[in-house]
Amino acid sequence: MKIAVVGTGLLGGAVARAARKQGVATQIIGIEPDAEHARLALDHGVVDRIEAEVPADAELVVLCCPSDRVAEWAQRLEAHPAPVCDVGSVKAPIVDHLRALMGGRFPARFVPCHPIAGSEKSGPAHAPSDLFRGRIIVLTPVAESDADAVETVRAFWAAIGGEVIRLDAGNHDRVLAVTSHLPHYLAYAFMLQVEEEDLPLSGGGFSDFTRIAAANPDMWWRIFKMNREALLDGLDGFEANLQLLRQALEADDDERGLALLRQAAKRRSQL
Amino acid sequence: MKIAVVGTGLLGGAVARAARKQGVATQIIGIEPDAEHARLALDHGVVDRIEAEVPADAELVVLCCPSDRVAEWAQRLEAHPAPVCDVGSVKAPIVDHLRALMGGRFPARFVPCHPIAGSEKSGPAHAPSDLFRGRIIVLTPVAESDADAVETVRAFWAAIGGEVIRLDAGNHDRVLAVTSHLPHYLAYAFMLQVEEEDLPLSGGGFSDFTRIAAANPDMWWRIFKMNREALLDGLDGFEANLQLLRQALEADDDERGLALLRQAAKRRSQL
Repeated sequence: MKIAVVGTGLLGGAVARAARKQGVATQIIGIEPDAEHARLALDHGVVDRIEAEVPADAELVVLCCPSDRVAEWAQRLEAHPAPVCDVGSVKAPIVDHLRALMGGRFPARFVPCHPIAGSEKSGPAHAPSDLFRGRIIVLTPVAESDADAVETVRAFWAAIGGEVIRLDAGNHDRVLAVTSHLPHYLAYAFMLQVEEEDLPLSGGGFSDFTRIAAANPDMWWRIFKMNREALLDGLDGFEANLQLLRQALEADDDERGLALLRQAAKRRSQL
Repeated sequence: MKIAVVGTGLLGGAVARAARKQGVATQIIGIEPDAEHARLALDHGVVDRIEAEVPADAELVVLCCPSDRVAEWAQRLEAHPAPVCDVGSVKAPIVDHLRALMGGRFPARFVPCHPIAGSEKSGPAHAPSDLFRGRIIVLTPVAESDADAVETVRAFWAAIGGEVIRLDAGNHDRVLAVTSHLPHYLAYAFMLQVEEEDLPLSGGGFSDFTRIAAANPDMWWRIFKMNREALLDGLDGFEANLQLLRQALEADDDERGLALLRQAAKRRSQL
């Protein structure tokens, strides 16, 4: 299969490397406006060639560009015969944006996807070939979606190790606001008050808790904005729980405080 | 060296295993009121014997009991000839509690310590023998501290791989409130709003961010209470930063929001 990867950053690089490693793709074409990413992707053998446009004979197009560019690319590729999918962390805004661009229509061969996998690192040089192994890949097809395109996309993710599920785009965004976007938001906010001289006195807990705060700020600011409503809802819930815990601590209420911590620890241990 | 470990949970178990592995101790006596922990510590060969009291000929005593019991043990061992140290996460309240118990005096051979190392797991069975390797060990000796006792304790931690530093107890507690106690507090609060059905849609970021919320709730509630003032100060700082970020998001202020995320990511990357 000849595949085209639009955007050869960390995720695009990981898609390319996984496709090659699993023997899914025999030819991988990268489309990458950033000269440095393009050079790195070539130098590291992540893609076979960099081209300016998606080749007409590509059999699958994976859009790994920033989330707010996905709709434009999907519109631009409407006439392309191959299935097109993306990796954006937010789904309903991409679907809505695309419908708005196309006057209400939706390109039937575009299958919105979100692989729940990532890294705090950036760029193709750090792209692991096993990033998707055992990871959930959410597909959020719409009413207009072409069944063959959905099946090609599903089979592709499964072939590179993902566990594919289908979900409504809005539900996806509400759950991911809590399980992904809010943790990133809180980790960034937390790091703002940490002083450089505090760092030597930090252990493994700190390191794990804050790892995601090293993630690409531009990418995450875009995600926060795209999923703002659900993120702010999640933040309201978090702040309410923060208050419950603070009240218990200030009132020296052992029973209440312990009950809250135990509930939290129990939920975490279900993971 | 014959050492006594009071409390053979995860930290006591790790101290015992590290001491044996590094050839620092030839005999390790456990003092453990919890029958299950005592049995596990014996079954896993963590300690050589369980005894009811610290043997008179122990050459070093490591208190790995809950933080709020350390002062009582240190008082009880005042007449023992060996240096005594602890592993409590909060230092000034232990020092203050001990002075209060002893009418203002302080046992010169007790050296307050905090190894910045831990695990979300509990019990001696999970105790790793390399838990302290490369980890910072903070000693907070006081004016009355016996120089030989401090040196014995320092050499012990260094021998099992720790990097030993000295700090004022109050400074230790203020920094650790930010680098350890607050992250645990926030991780617990965060988990309270996560629903069981959200868990399958979580990735590596979520898993790392919340790992510390699986830690022992009883132990952490005690730590939160002992370091309440510094923890609440840290929480105030966090909530102020949370507001800054929320304002930027609500006002769609890209410049401000990006500047905050970049500042946070830069600080984290200094780790």
